[in-house]
Amino acid sequence: MEVEMLELDEKELFVCCGSTQFAKEMAKASPFSSLDQAVSAARHVWFNLVDVNGWLEAFSAHPQIGQSPSSQWSKAEQSTALATATESSSQELADWNARYRQKFGFIFLICASGRTTAEILAELKKRYSNRPIIEFEIAAQEQMKVTELRLAKLFSAKGKASSTAF
Amino acid sequence: MEVEMLELDEKELFVCCGSTQFAKEMAKASPFSSLDQAVSAARHVWFNLVDVNGWLEAFSAHPQIGQSPSSQWSKAEQSTALATATESSSQELADWNARYRQKFGFIFLICASGRTTAEILAELKKRYSNRPIIEFEIAAQEQMKVTELRLAKLFSAKGKASSTAF
Repeated sequence: MEVEMLELDEKELFVCCGSTQFAKEMAKASPFSSLDQAVSAARHVWFNLVDVNGWLEAFSAHPQIGQSPSSQWSKAEQSTALATATESSSQELADWNARYRQKFGFIFLICASGRTTAEILAELKKRYSNRPIIEFEIAAQEQMKVTELRLAKLFSAKGKASSTAF
Repeated sequence: MEVEMLELDEKELFVCCGSTQFAKEMAKASPFSSLDQAVSAARHVWFNLVDVNGWLEAFSAHPQIGQSPSSQWSKAEQSTALATATESSSQELADWNARYRQKFGFIFLICASGRTTAEILAELKKRYSNRPIIEFEIAAQEQMKVTELRLAKLFSAKGKASSTAF
């Protein structure tokens, strides 16, 4: 029984998570025998190897939530939010995004998949009261969720929908 | 019974902790009626208001531990370390400092006051195995200890050795 391996290059990995160090370390760990193996490697690299500057680099690669996303992937991830936005909720979200960025020094990051604008706004307001270091770690966890979704899409696009090939 | 107030300006505060935001917020909170009040304000500003970029800014204001410090205060804080350093321990410390910086993206920070080179080296090796986010918070706590010592010196230098003036 041979396991088919999937090779991912730095460029593809950087689209999953915009940290140069993440993309480099993951490319070194590639190829992967399954999505599970890739996700497990990604979690290790992101939480243990990528330094705080790398986290900030990856955060800055995202569009502001609620703003017209430039990438296809951000657009798909924010489709529920975009479909449920009204003019006033969009404005409120923009205002809170600005307050958040002012306080924390990086963009508000949330795995938006399946969430409405109202849910995202409620989460933003709740997280706004956190201490900067706490919020920094929460944002990193949200980034990891986004990375996992994108790795899954990458595997799927490359004809690897199942986690292991028999 | 009147309490004498001590005014601290941004420049003095920046020497205690090299974050622009810290110095600004503390200058706003000045004058202080006692060292205790100043330390309490400093803790609030550092842990709740200064963002992660501000932490990195403050870390980068320190000399590498074990290297000839340029400021009088760093020199005094590292006097025990400097007095107990041998050629080989200095070299080992320099090597580990480089490894630490390579892994975490910022300088190894420790409140060196009263610690020997051997103690500092042992602590560096122990902390080196931490995850980046954990180490980031530990470094911030060490920075706060340094800030407290420097605030105390500032109060003392300005003729305010006791915590409250009656």
